[in-house]
Order: sequence, then structure tokens, then C-alpha cells
Amino acid sequence: MVQAKTWILVKHFDGFPKQSNFELKVEELPEPKDGEVLLEAVFLSVDPYMRPFSRIRMKEGNVMIGTQLAKVIQSNNPAFPVGSHVVGRCGWRTHTVCDGTDLVAIMPDWPQDVSLSLALGIIGMPGLTALYGIEEVLGVQKGSDAKVAFLKELGFDEAFNYKTVGSLEEALKQASPEGYDCFFENVGGPFSTVALQQMKNFGRIAVCGSISVYNDTTPQTGPYPHLTMIFKQLKMEGFMHSKWEHKHPESLKRLMGWLKEGKLHSREHITKGFENMPAAFMGLLRGDNIGKAIIAV
Amino acid sequence: MVQAKTWILVKHFDGFPKQSNFELKVEELPEPKDGEVLLEAVFLSVDPYMRPFSRIRMKEGNVMIGTQLAKVIQSNNPAFPVGSHVVGRCGWRTHTVCDGTDLVAIMPDWPQDVSLSLALGIIGMPGLTALYGIEEVLGVQKGSDAKVAFLKELGFDEAFNYKTVGSLEEALKQASPEGYDCFFENVGGPFSTVALQQMKNFGRIAVCGSISVYNDTTPQTGPYPHLTMIFKQLKMEGFMHSKWEHKHPESLKRLMGWLKEGKLHSREHITKGFENMPAAFMGLLRGDNIGKAIIAV
Repeated sequence: MVQAKTWILVKHFDGFPKQSNFELKVEELPEPKDGEVLLEAVFLSVDPYMRPFSRIRMKEGNVMIGTQLAKVIQSNNPAFPVGSHVVGRCGWRTHTVCDGTDLVAIMPDWPQDVSLSLALGIIGMPGLTALYGIEEVLGVQKGSDAKVAFLKELGFDEAFNYKTVGSLEEALKQASPEGYDCFFENVGGPFSTVALQQMKNFGRIAVCGSISVYNDTTPQTGPYPHLTMIFKQLKMEGFMHSKWEHKHPESLKRLMGWLKEGKLHSREHITKGFENMPAAFMGLLRGDNIGKAIIAV
Repeated sequence: MVQAKTWILVKHFDGFPKQSNFELKVEELPEPKDGEVLLEAVFLSVDPYMRPFSRIRMKEGNVMIGTQLAKVIQSNNPAFPVGSHVVGRCGWRTHTVCDGTDLVAIMPDWPQDVSLSLALGIIGMPGLTALYGIEEVLGVQKGSDAKVAFLKELGFDEAFNYKTVGSLEEALKQASPEGYDCFFENVGGPFSTVALQQMKNFGRIAVCGSISVYNDTTPQTGPYPHLTMIFKQLKMEGFMHSKWEHKHPESLKRLMGWLKEGKLHSREHITKGFENMPAAFMGLLRGDNIGKAIIAV
């Protein structure tokens, strides 16, 4: 009999998450039946989407939603043999009994020298979201060789902290006086209003996050975007990486290739201990992390 | 020497347009030079876009922007012979001297029994905007034969007045309980927030107008749309018909064909007298018109 530790959402978030929204609970797991496997979490992920999605996908008393990198420790399903690693939407739990429906085996040729935690980061949902946002939604074209060389040399051309910058408008204007063709929106709120004004005609906006409004108790309001969208003929698209699920295997291979070639750089912010998962989640929403927030069990 | 009556925007609109924003002025026109023509307005159009565009395209003292159907009454340009009709962005004026740059001759085979005023309506910018919004932006597919028959039978399935309806939310839910795939946005403001909530996943929103905010003195605000756009993976695109200018000739032919076949129905709200143009414009923004607002000189 295996005992699973789980983090329960005992009370829906109201404003910024508090430790008291969560409760650690131990659950006795049944033996895996035919077709089922028993998983042990190795790495768990905390992501900003959990804050808004908890409200629409969960009831109070449910185990928190989330993805983990787990090891198969018992198996009655030949697709997931003992010792293999899977990515699964098991929620915040150390052990899980499930059939394979929602599991994805990691790439068969995952390199030895690449941490499996990256399956929750740059070679996983966040990497895919960035890739699809850039290629499918924004439709960014290959830059000229000179531009690519320049970008490589500098890393990013310009960067600033949207929370501490004096004037967003000035910062955006200085960074690109002629405006912006593409905008990858992850912040939302008043920032989006300022950024909208800096778009060029026929600009594209990929929206996959809106972290600045996630903890609103009453929704923040801002000027309606329609008039600017007409004047500039802008395209704005909300998306999740799941929209291009049929491309995932090939996309993950490309991401892994770029990582191995040194074209992609990954940084992780690892918190140790399943017990610290709510703290890691709250830190993420405060912006404490630099790099992908991961919990190592 | 020809005298042109013109309507000048003497003061930028502040809130709802007033008669005092306009001044009727008589202008002496020069003789048309080589390559130039002299036009006489037959029909002029007032359109909601004039309200927001006046702010970004005009200075105080300019002749109001706008499109007219005019007759060539003198010509030093073989492309536009005397007696022919053109659509031109000449502004609110009875007579114009210009080279042909901004003029479009009406279709050579314009049917005798179709009013030339429709070149400002269903066989012009508004017709093209509807066509491109539906086909290019919303990507509406051909419906099944049964659906088409049903639509033909009923005209529209459902309709309501967004200004007088008790609850927009209830009206939209009742009209289509399962939600909406496509939304042609012309109203904006609080209406857009309610409509956004009724979209289905992967819905498309074509934005070519936002009349409910045009007369704001301070911008109305509403909840930011981003989170809903992510959850439902919505696409929203601001556009003007000019984006598909290369398709205009073929599109106008299609519109004319549908009109002649009785598939398109046009209704016009004609105001007589150039002197009444500001009044017609203000009536349009109040929603007094049913059908395309046209001024017959």
C-alpha cells in the first residue's frame, strides 16, 4: 500500500494565494489495476496559469492541478514500463495511480546530460508555448543574418522590469522608436494598454498570459482596445500550447536540438521538498523566481 | 469659375458632435490643369468612422473627410471623361478639382436600374467591409443547405437592440445558448465585454467599428479581455476594408451580382441637401438612420 502526499485546495483563492488556501493531505492509494501504473513524482511544476485555472477547473477539496515529471514504479500498462519517465497532469501529489490516458512518455532519446526537469520547462509546456506563440501566432519570419548575429551577440536588445520602470511608455518608445510588429503578452492589465499604443500597423499580439490580473479580487479595468485595434489593424490571439498538440513531438525534438546546440538557454529556480509547494507557487506569483519554477521532490 | 460649398471642421469634436463644430464655407475653385478633373458631388456619405478619424487625420480648419459619388463635369484626364461617375475621398464638398490619384471610376457595367448611391453603400466601402470581415477575418464557412434555407426563410434568426435590451447577457444566451463562433464587432464598449463572455472556444472576432465609445470625452473602461481570450483561445482582429484593396474590383462585382440576384438587400436613409450634412452626421451617431446614411446633393 502506497501513501501519497497531496496538496488540496481547501478554499478558492481570493486575491493573492495564502498558505491557508492549501492543506497537505495523505491518501492511501489502491493497487494499480490492469492497464494502470503507479507513478512517483520526481519534479513538479508551479506555473502562473494555476491561479486563474483553479477557479474554472477545480472545486474546493480537489488536489491542486498541475504537471509533474514522474517515474513509473509499478506498471500494468506495457506502454509505460517500470523505470521509465513520464510527464503527467497528475496535480500536486507525490504518488499517483492512473491509466495512461493523460501521460506522455518523455522522448525515447532524452540525453543523459539534460535534466529531466526540463520536460516541465524549456522542453515542455513553457518551451512549446514560446515556440508556438512566436511561430504560429506572431508568424515571426527568419531575421537577416546580420540581425541574427547581432541578437546572438547581445542576447536581448532591450529589457526592462515592467514593475519598476518609471514610464512604460517611455521605455517602450526608447527601445523601439518606430514601434512594434510583434508583442508576446504575458503581463496584461495596464501594461497591455500602454503596449497596444506602441504597436505598428498590422501588428500581431500573442496572448498566453496575463499575470498582473490573476490575483484581482475585483477585475481591473482599462480603456477598451477596439479603436486602436481598428486604427492599426492589429491581430490579437489568445492561445494555449495544446492548440498545436499534433506538432508536439516534432516541436520537442526541435527544442531539444536547439538546447544541445547552445541556441536555447534554460534557467531553473528549483525549490526542494514537496512540502514547500504552496510557498513556491506564491513566490512565483510574486515574481521571486528567475527561470522556470520547479519543485524537486 | 466654379464655387464649391464645403463643410469645415472648425473645432475638433469634444463629446457628441454639435452643429457649432462645422462651418459651411464657399471656395472658389481654379480651372483644372493638365491631368486634372472637376467633379460635382451627386451623393455624399456620412459614416461613423468620421468621428474617430477626424481626430487623427484632420486639423481644425480642414474640410471634413469623407467619400462621395461625383460626376466628372470638366476633364483634362482621359481616364475620367466628362459625364462619367467616380467615387472619391474628396471630403464634404460639392465641387472638387483634383488629379485622378484618389478616384475610382464606378464599374463600367453599372446597371441602369441600380442607384449610383449604392457605390457609397452596399456596392462600396460598407459592403466591402462586411464581405472582408466575414470571409477574410472571421473565415465563415459556407453553411449547410438546410441552414442556408432556414436563414433565407427567416432573414436573421435573432435580433435585438443593444441600446434598449434589458440584459445583453440574457439576450445573447437566449439567441444562442451554446455560444458564438463569430462576432462582427461594431459597437464596442461594455457590449464587447458581455459578448466576449459568450464566445465559444476558438471563436473569431472581427473589429471594424466601436461606435459606443466614439463620443467619449474620457475613455470608458472595462475589464481587460486577455484572460478570457486565453481561456477560450479567441482571435480578435481590427481591420479596414483597405487591407484587401487588391480584391476590390472582383469583390464589387460579386456584391453587384448578389444584389441583382436578390441575395443582398440594401436600404438607404437619404438626407436631401448639402446644407444638412452635419445634421445627417449627428443623426447617424445617434442611430436615427435605418440603412446606409447618404446625402443627396
